[in-house]
Amino acid sequence: MDSKEKRRGILERLNAGEVVVGDGGYVMQLERRGYVKAGHWTPEAAVEHPEAVRQLHREFLRAGANVIQTFTFYCSEDKLEISGNVTNITGAQINEAACDLAREVANEGDALVAGCVSKTPCYVKSHSENEVKAIFKKQMDDFLKKDIDFFIVEFVDHVEEAVWAVEVLKTSGKPVGATLCISPHGDMHGVPPGQCAVSLVKAGADIVGVNCHLDPLTCVQTVKLMKAGLEKAGLKAHLMIQPLGFHTPECNIGGYTSLPEYPFALETRAITRWDIHKYAREAYNAGIRYIGGCCGFEPYHIRAIAEEVAAERGFLPPASEKHGLWGAALEMHTKPWVRARARREYWENLLPASGRPKCPSMATPADDYEKQLETKIQM
Amino acid sequence: MDSKEKRRGILERLNAGEVVVGDGGYVMQLERRGYVKAGHWTPEAAVEHPEAVRQLHREFLRAGANVIQTFTFYCSEDKLEISGNVTNITGAQINEAACDLAREVANEGDALVAGCVSKTPCYVKSHSENEVKAIFKKQMDDFLKKDIDFFIVEFVDHVEEAVWAVEVLKTSGKPVGATLCISPHGDMHGVPPGQCAVSLVKAGADIVGVNCHLDPLTCVQTVKLMKAGLEKAGLKAHLMIQPLGFHTPECNIGGYTSLPEYPFALETRAITRWDIHKYAREAYNAGIRYIGGCCGFEPYHIRAIAEEVAAERGFLPPASEKHGLWGAALEMHTKPWVRARARREYWENLLPASGRPKCPSMATPADDYEKQLETKIQM
Amino acid sequence: MDSKEKRRGILERLNAGEVVVGDGGYVMQLERRGYVKAGHWTPEAAVEHPEAVRQLHREFLRAGANVIQTFTFYCSEDKLEISGNVTNITGAQINEAACDLAREVANEGDALVAGCVSKTPCYVKSHSENEVKAIFKKQMDDFLKKDIDFFIVEFVDHVEEAVWAVEVLKTSGKPVGATLCISPHGDMHGVPPGQCAVSLVKAGADIVGVNCHLDPLTCVQTVKLMKAGLEKAGLKAHLMIQPLGFHTPECNIGGYTSLPEYPFALETRAITRWDIHKYAREAYNAGIRYIGGCCGFEPYHIRAIAEEVAAERGFLPPASEKHGLWGAALEMHTKPWVRARARREYWENLLPASGRPKCPSMATPADDYEKQLETKIQM
Amino acid sequence: MDSKEKRRGILERLNAGEVVVGDGGYVMQLERRGYVKAGHWTPEAAVEHPEAVRQLHREFLRAGANVIQTFTFYCSEDKLEISGNVTNITGAQINEAACDLAREVANEGDALVAGCVSKTPCYVKSHSENEVKAIFKKQMDDFLKKDIDFFIVEFVDHVEEAVWAVEVLKTSGKPVGATLCISPHGDMHGVPPGQCAVSLVKAGADIVGVNCHLDPLTCVQTVKLMKAGLEKAGLKAHLMIQPLGFHTPECNIGGYTSLPEYPFALETRAITRWDIHKYAREAYNAGIRYIGGCCGFEPYHIRAIAEEVAAERGFLPPASEKHGLWGAALEMHTKPWVRARARREYWENLLPASGRPKCPSMATPADDYEKQLETKIQM
Repeated sequence: MDSKEKRRGILERLNAGEVVVGDGGYVMQLERRGYVKAGHWTPEAAVEHPEAVRQLHREFLRAGANVIQTFTFYCSEDKLEISGNVTNITGAQINEAACDLAREVANEGDALVAGCVSKTPCYVKSHSENEVKAIFKKQMDDFLKKDIDFFIVEFVDHVEEAVWAVEVLKTSGKPVGATLCISPHGDMHGVPPGQCAVSLVKAGADIVGVNCHLDPLTCVQTVKLMKAGLEKAGLKAHLMIQPLGFHTPECNIGGYTSLPEYPFALETRAITRWDIHKYAREAYNAGIRYIGGCCGFEPYHIRAIAEEVAAERGFLPPASEKHGLWGAALEMHTKPWVRARARREYWENLLPASGRPKCPSMATPADDYEKQLETKIQM
Repeated sequence: MDSKEKRRGILERLNAGEVVVGDGGYVMQLERRGYVKAGHWTPEAAVEHPEAVRQLHREFLRAGANVIQTFTFYCSEDKLEISGNVTNITGAQINEAACDLAREVANEGDALVAGCVSKTPCYVKSHSENEVKAIFKKQMDDFLKKDIDFFIVEFVDHVEEAVWAVEVLKTSGKPVGATLCISPHGDMHGVPPGQCAVSLVKAGADIVGVNCHLDPLTCVQTVKLMKAGLEKAGLKAHLMIQPLGFHTPECNIGGYTSLPEYPFALETRAITRWDIHKYAREAYNAGIRYIGGCCGFEPYHIRAIAEEVAAERGFLPPASEKHGLWGAALEMHTKPWVRARARREYWENLLPASGRPKCPSMATPADDYEKQLETKIQM
Repeated sequence: MDSKEKRRGILERLNAGEVVVGDGGYVMQLERRGYVKAGHWTPEAAVEHPEAVRQLHREFLRAGANVIQTFTFYCSEDKLEISGNVTNITGAQINEAACDLAREVANEGDALVAGCVSKTPCYVKSHSENEVKAIFKKQMDDFLKKDIDFFIVEFVDHVEEAVWAVEVLKTSGKPVGATLCISPHGDMHGVPPGQCAVSLVKAGADIVGVNCHLDPLTCVQTVKLMKAGLEKAGLKAHLMIQPLGFHTPECNIGGYTSLPEYPFALETRAITRWDIHKYAREAYNAGIRYIGGCCGFEPYHIRAIAEEVAAERGFLPPASEKHGLWGAALEMHTKPWVRARARREYWENLLPASGRPKCPSMATPADDYEKQLETKIQM
Repeated sequence: MDSKEKRRGILERLNAGEVVVGDGGYVMQLERRGYVKAGHWTPEAAVEHPEAVRQLHREFLRAGANVIQTFTFYCSEDKLEISGNVTNITGAQINEAACDLAREVANEGDALVAGCVSKTPCYVKSHSENEVKAIFKKQMDDFLKKDIDFFIVEFVDHVEEAVWAVEVLKTSGKPVGATLCISPHGDMHGVPPGQCAVSLVKAGADIVGVNCHLDPLTCVQTVKLMKAGLEKAGLKAHLMIQPLGFHTPECNIGGYTSLPEYPFALETRAITRWDIHKYAREAYNAGIRYIGGCCGFEPYHIRAIAEEVAAERGFLPPASEKHGLWGAALEMHTKPWVRARARREYWENLLPASGRPKCPSMATPADDYEKQLETKIQM
């Protein structure tokens, strides 16, 4: 029997009201593992070190992910060229290798493969619909040579570019999800989230939402605004969220790239598994049914999503065999004070110390967001 | 030619004045990847999921590690039994599988394999030299069936138990390193670091130092006290350090297990790669030549050690092909403020924000260390 | 010559475009000096310890205040009765004594006396316009027996009650200023600041603004919204601000009384003189010309306002004879590192440490403001 | 009856085992009130603005102080000359006016007057015993023209200079207390606290201890070391403490003048009244019976000392009539969450937020204390 035939598609699952758990962030985690170069963040590791990509796919699958995204971030020809990271490898080679890796691992479980495209340098440079669409078309064609289940447009901060991507990808006949990396203040041209969502759905997107750039609860807020926009316009779409795995209370328009810690000192902002429980519940309560993560989401964060929605899904992920719910595995610890931590209340209420008394708790974003915001508010 | 024959041993390297880069922490990283259960932290993944262990070994090797430690933490028979984590697997099976994995990856580079033993529940329970030594002997015999280069005794907080372990392992004829998980205040019975070092060297340890429990700079301080103790006693040994990858300014006797964040909310205490540069330099300046990490040290932290001592070693590790030194890869970033971060001064002086304004920066350790310390100081 | 005749009134000054410096907070400062009881905060010290009230008036005058407010906070009969703080003293006695003290000190300089009324328990209890107005009328009559220059309605969190107060006080023929203790989110019934300002001006207020409850920059923001509301309505009034002298980034609707530190652990939130410089400039730039302070504003904070607007006013206050501008008096210090602080850049850019590593930097307000706000935003 | 005759002297009180409550800090509080110039901190206000000094004396008396210190800080001729703060006033005039003010207020209660001398610029400049002693002699002669009860040598950071001062003042026949501004690490030449105490007692000091420079609990630690030194030497003396009213966890040798916040941004380090309760109890438990404060101690801090030791003294201070113990006066507050604060547990356990999320919680002292300390520890 063909595994493809029996797979239930992304829309079948979402239409049935199921919670779909997404996977976590690849580029930042693989940077820390030694396979991705920060700066241009291109995914040549899919060709150069497939074992490393495969292993991370597996960890997300094991953590409960229903979707394995192809490791094709920034894998448009124009971006690869600018990056200077690869010389003997083509974008097509990476895209194809990435599809194979994702498929291989997805088939080890009940997961779908999403072919992913992200924003192109071409958009800001040329602002040409034809040129940008040609780039997306080329990448789509690579994907269509392989066995992928649906598409995701992600990490786009101008809704216009995302609309173009959706229009291209819809020609494949496959479902398309689209996530913008925007704040509650809107996209880089100030288009509010509600209006962004309307444009994406009108362009054909089946699933809309946000990814990256800001922390989980802020992203939930943005998706709520998207939802409200769709409702007001009488439109319907599934909602999706894959936020940053870092606390960003500064919540600026430019997102985490504007924070002084980006990209090499974000450790102290990292979210815990308990933050994830809260996030997953908030996302669920907001009506979002495709819940995953982006940069900073490691396998155990994805497992925490799966554990939070275990009742709704009816099962725990494989990796929970190595995890006591809410710290239960500490019950047998030799120290009494550690045993006392084997309970939900403890972890839910803990305010973890940074261990860095000379560091502040909030930073000033580089793009001076506050002034921008103030200007808007006054108008 | 046999790869074993041409390998230069750990003492050859250290005697030649080389800097030996250790690997990072396995149990906590594999917990996050979904393969180790927090609480008892046993290493059955070596049998259950060898691909996951192999991949992490590879990442450390690629990051510059000269030593691959067998993934045999807490792999004594008595600990495995207490843990309840394994039923169909014996300690011998894990030890042997772990040796094979370490060997396989070490041979992919110029690395040595260290067979590792850690503290036993038996010591605190029985306090019987015979029983404890029998346990270490059994684990050593497992290792000796395989091709390992030397032994490391690690994560022992009573110097007496470490001495017993060293005495057993020295019967193998192989070099032995011994690292205690103690603070500058001494071991759990208050034996000062200097005296601990003397006992270990007298028992036969070739390399002595500390691992785990406290942050890098605190551990450097402890090793300095060990060195001073050895010098005062007219003894000589190589020095070794594999600290925690978390900031622990509270520096209590019990170490990080006493912190409220242990083990599931330590994220915000995580050290950056720039903290590592400072640590590696301080360790080097203190005369320590075996420099690695323990819990919290991910591959990129090991790479940062290797990059800091690149001049002394004469080469960069493989993973540096995906890393610009001191942020150099940000030079081409599209945002001017991110480009401005492509320099050493920026990262050296950055005080990273936690993004958690409702959290404190220091915690109160559970074991009320301050009162203990005060008592000592007053005496 | 009668001192009264030659005094230029508050409106004369504001109409002429002068900057009027207000005084600081009485109740909280006199609580710390031992004369006011926290909780009901009534001003019986005007009768019981006139020397203490006189001295604080003098310090504010010396710091540059153009207005001395009568120490009559919460001095309505209904509030005094509830408080239980006084038994042998009537409200009339306090009001009259307070007027005399204010007058005496104001006459030592070129200052005006403002008779002050604040919110009444009666309003929330009875919601009766007649009853509330009768209370204000009674207090006004006390004031009118004495030589006061104008009235201030302050610390009212329902605009309706403030409107009633203004209507009563306007019957005196004297100028009336009205400051609400509200946030940018509006009054306790959600009436937005702009609308509040319009209602107050329509009721006859000559000067409108905010006082207390939130920190200086937040209060500037609220007054800006008031100004915008007036402009939109085609109304004109002078603007006034007397904010809290504490940092309240949580900016909740209930203000500082909802913060866990209120009222006995606010020290660590106290603003510095340098914060004041920034505040005074922002207030001035926003078009506010009556600039003072409320709880937490000590004499040196008022001096800092006067120093910031010295160029605009054309003179420094008397207390500046004991103050080097921007730290200039440190130039002769014996320690070189203290001498290095004798300059504006140093103090403007300093991020002062709290010295409290176990404390957070932000708290959760008791009134769960966030949920309230979220509800509003979504609507 | 002459008030002088019936006064029980400082030694009578201490010998009887009574707790003597000291007063708080004058120069920093009067700087904030507008009467003292930061930098040289000279006390000419005793002549220029006696009403301001008198009022602060009264507030401390009212708060429970048993001793009113003359406002004669840095009032040696050499310091006044360097300061440039006074031209038409002599040191003798200030000393005499200050004695009169202290006497006047002390007589309003059951308080003693202490004539105070502090370190001289001459000591560091000349290192001449004769010259320094001549300066102290001159100041003592001013005091002896007036009615003072005993002497206090304070704010001296070289024990040698303090010894010289004690030797001079003892010639008066009056009791002498001596407090150094040192850390647990010892005086500026590294003389440990225990040895300092021995030298002072041998020179004739009846009471020894520390004042200023570091926070209350650190100062208690230093006085404990003094006590231990005296006990070891078989000497006896009363113990005294008047610490800084600011948190200084950095605890460096140079004290708070080395902190970046000194002297104009210390607000956020200010201690609360609840910190004082803990401090007063710790001091009492350490056997210290003269308990007061220095810079940063306002009247309500002194009241908190008096309230903490009310049981031992048998009475509350006058200012407690305006203070509910442990927040009791909040019981009648209109907000339920504020009423919930009317209890000891609330305030004892509160970790107050700074309201400054961009600020760190600890600073790096300017004198790079850590390196100094490390050097000492290693030796």
